[in-house]
Amino acid sequence: MSRPIVSRIPSTKLLYCPRQFRWSQRLVYFKHASGRYSSSKSPVPLPVLAPLPPTLKQKAAEVVYSDLPSGTTVTVNGWIRTIRKHKKYAFVNILDGSHDKVLQLVFNDPDRVNDLRVGVSLTVTGTIQRRQIPADPYEILVESYNVLGSVPEDEPYPLQNKYLSQDYLRRELPTIRFRSLSSGVAMRFRSRAVSELARYFDENEFIQTHPPLITSSDCEGAGEVFTVVSESSETPFFGKQGYLTVSTQLHLEALMMGLSRVWTLSPAFRAEKSITSRHLSEFWMLEAEVAFADRLEHIMSLVEGLLRTALTRLKESGALESVLSVKTYLEGQKSQDGHGEDKDQEITRAQVLQRWDGMLQNAPWKRITYKRAVEVLKQAEKEGKARFESSAEYGDNLKSEHEKWLASQYAQGPMFVTQYPSQLKPFYMLPTPGSCGGTVECFDLLVPDLGELVGGSLREFDYTRLKASIERTGVDAGDLEWYAELRKWGSVPHGGFGMGFERLICYLVGIYNIRDVIAFPRWVDHCVC
Amino acid sequence: MSRPIVSRIPSTKLLYCPRQFRWSQRLVYFKHASGRYSSSKSPVPLPVLAPLPPTLKQKAAEVVYSDLPSGTTVTVNGWIRTIRKHKKYAFVNILDGSHDKVLQLVFNDPDRVNDLRVGVSLTVTGTIQRRQIPADPYEILVESYNVLGSVPEDEPYPLQNKYLSQDYLRRELPTIRFRSLSSGVAMRFRSRAVSELARYFDENEFIQTHPPLITSSDCEGAGEVFTVVSESSETPFFGKQGYLTVSTQLHLEALMMGLSRVWTLSPAFRAEKSITSRHLSEFWMLEAEVAFADRLEHIMSLVEGLLRTALTRLKESGALESVLSVKTYLEGQKSQDGHGEDKDQEITRAQVLQRWDGMLQNAPWKRITYKRAVEVLKQAEKEGKARFESSAEYGDNLKSEHEKWLASQYAQGPMFVTQYPSQLKPFYMLPTPGSCGGTVECFDLLVPDLGELVGGSLREFDYTRLKASIERTGVDAGDLEWYAELRKWGSVPHGGFGMGFERLICYLVGIYNIRDVIAFPRWVDHCVC
Repeated sequence: MSRPIVSRIPSTKLLYCPRQFRWSQRLVYFKHASGRYSSSKSPVPLPVLAPLPPTLKQKAAEVVYSDLPSGTTVTVNGWIRTIRKHKKYAFVNILDGSHDKVLQLVFNDPDRVNDLRVGVSLTVTGTIQRRQIPADPYEILVESYNVLGSVPEDEPYPLQNKYLSQDYLRRELPTIRFRSLSSGVAMRFRSRAVSELARYFDENEFIQTHPPLITSSDCEGAGEVFTVVSESSETPFFGKQGYLTVSTQLHLEALMMGLSRVWTLSPAFRAEKSITSRHLSEFWMLEAEVAFADRLEHIMSLVEGLLRTALTRLKESGALESVLSVKTYLEGQKSQDGHGEDKDQEITRAQVLQRWDGMLQNAPWKRITYKRAVEVLKQAEKEGKARFESSAEYGDNLKSEHEKWLASQYAQGPMFVTQYPSQLKPFYMLPTPGSCGGTVECFDLLVPDLGELVGGSLREFDYTRLKASIERTGVDAGDLEWYAELRKWGSVPHGGFGMGFERLICYLVGIYNIRDVIAFPRWVDHCVC
Repeated sequence: MSRPIVSRIPSTKLLYCPRQFRWSQRLVYFKHASGRYSSSKSPVPLPVLAPLPPTLKQKAAEVVYSDLPSGTTVTVNGWIRTIRKHKKYAFVNILDGSHDKVLQLVFNDPDRVNDLRVGVSLTVTGTIQRRQIPADPYEILVESYNVLGSVPEDEPYPLQNKYLSQDYLRRELPTIRFRSLSSGVAMRFRSRAVSELARYFDENEFIQTHPPLITSSDCEGAGEVFTVVSESSETPFFGKQGYLTVSTQLHLEALMMGLSRVWTLSPAFRAEKSITSRHLSEFWMLEAEVAFADRLEHIMSLVEGLLRTALTRLKESGALESVLSVKTYLEGQKSQDGHGEDKDQEITRAQVLQRWDGMLQNAPWKRITYKRAVEVLKQAEKEGKARFESSAEYGDNLKSEHEKWLASQYAQGPMFVTQYPSQLKPFYMLPTPGSCGGTVECFDLLVPDLGELVGGSLREFDYTRLKASIERTGVDAGDLEWYAELRKWGSVPHGGFGMGFERLICYLVGIYNIRDVIAFPRWVDHCVC
């Protein structure tokens, strides 16, 4: 083994460390020549690093970990975000999207940056200048640089360092918006969220599956389903009509009947023409099914455990901090540049923090029945505590205003509303025992500001009762026969849930429009690139 | 904090432990009443367990970890796999898909199982009987049981305990095959592989992204692309034709231009009519793009690091062991049941082991140029070391037989073949410097038995040169203008790769047909459920 570089990590300098290191602040780390890290005590094998040009995040971590002294020569890559010329110096900030920080390059002759312009990509070699700012531990005194890619001289670089709304970025810069701070932080957060959600499922022995995207039934789509055709084929390519899935639940149940605990993060599609901030034609759904779960509490606890654990870890690893610091930065930038209305900036930093606090509050999240929820809403209106455009009535779906009020005002945090009347819910839900089919064993998870975030239920697991229920819906029973037949061979009580992944991300990063947390949003009349 | 249950883990009993524990065999673990685990030394927060009925895998881990003594009462759930009646006892084996082991239930009166049949699901309460077999540490002496779901009395349960080929399972039991050992192990392995691949990307600061499935260009599809239509819409839903993506690479490059390191595991679609064991109409692709990578070695090292690390960890965590033990079991079962030809069983346990050993061998994987590869092939044929249906010729694509021979015989393990002639490769690849456009900076990763597993390249990053290259292909340049324009604003050298995810899984679990490692395979004329 090569002679290791040993360094003690000062806990005040943890901002930049790779996330694997955040769990411990008291150990001694070794970096081997092979690129592998190890620590004095950790039993966990530390990451194996790919031999790639280091990102700015990795370089910053190395400066902090290995306590690289001022004067050490390093090479970094990035895109120029700002250029400031002073009398004796010039300062150029670069970023590379690996985190939301910029790195300051110092040129000791302002004329050396005359050829540089915002947006240019470059490789820089220079020496480290350590700083006493924990969030910004070093800058680079430039020795030499090499422009990798220039920008046109006759067109202004579109991503200038000024406030640009998400709306503008998406509309005008659909392909290069990822280099902006606001899109960048959303994309990075999305990635971290996937990791943490997957980790919780992994720890709980859920099997990650990939149900099909192309299906042979449109029964759940209610006419809002896309059809898949092959234009080089005279007859239907699949021998029958193929559709894009609207939910993987039915197929997930088949997988559950063999593997017990399954989950997926999968695309889903709706040919819906409504244009709102909450609808996409192509979006990602997180869905799970659990065998042998015979109480609704099982599924609610799973949802609560999943979100609470993932959020705790996202917070611990600094992901929330990143979101908030970008929010603060953008708020400042916006007030300076003085733009008008902007839905995103209506969601303040404080509000984002409140959402997270609500999710992470200690008590188990409030759980009330639909019946009780309607009573609470009526009572609140009667007492003048709330005013709704339309009153809640037993038997009607809760309106968005009701859901928001319940979570924001009544629960002041996430809450489960359970046991809705059967006629409001799909055919596959399990009737509440003793309710004579009046209600079903289901829940909606409501959160402040947004309303419904997750929906789940126990599923009917008796073949005959499910067939009867399908018949009542009037859909073609033939299409669903394979699904009903899952109940024929050792059926088990089970339940599951579904969550719109983009809605979760919007909620947690304080972005208003669902189109701004997915890379290339698709909706009616919109399919750019 | 509640008084913890403390137990020392005997290292001989690690077969069943949750994978988080495998990294250390010398620590003392605590299980808290909250369901959270911790250890005496580990700085890593241990898993938070969801309050669900435990799986058989979790229950086995608990028996081993907490050293539950014989006589402890437990409750478990599962499906009956076998029933054996003896004079004084009856033995019923159950499984639940959480791992590939069965749990033996002992009934002390054979008549008590008269109502039970294979396939029935049940909840069992009984007492633990510890055994001295590490792989099978306990059985349950049944006190009471409760049938959850029965099977029809007039139809035989289709998943009897005898050898059923993957082919038969897929064709005849498309929805309940996941309960079989052979499909089960494939699905579980697939899930573990996703986790380990994601972990490597995570550690290397790659951002997991979700490029679009519906795209506005069919330029890469060469006529084998599906069209997406909304039947309730007179005009094209997206204002123009929408297609299902054939590869996310182009969009991934856009994300890379802002986020530096990006990857995705994403569905891709081909309306190909060829029916082979290697083609699906819907499959999953693992793709990555890296900014500032300016040497092909960067991308090859990334691929090698990714696969080597993921496989090492899959092996360490027992995933390979599971694959092999199921393979052994099925081989035995098949020779007993005496079925005929079966492509899966032609891939032996020894062969699977050889594939893994090849991938994990110590030296860096062999790397030779396409030119050299052709020479090697010609030489081998001349010397009588190899015999091909058609000889390799410079300028032609390597045939599958060539690729297999190179990896199996020449390299005896994975190998990279680099720098193919430009005319064999897509327009976006970077010409080899100094080759006058003769070759491009690309590689194919070839593996024994299979041939090509991964393809990658550096990408052309100059706007003008890329435009010229697009023009030469004859595709509609308008469709690709957005892609070319990524090079206008601070373009950077970059490269990436793509790997068919199902092909990787097939290779590593020794399954012959790609259709058997995806839950619901789709190909021409086949879209079941």
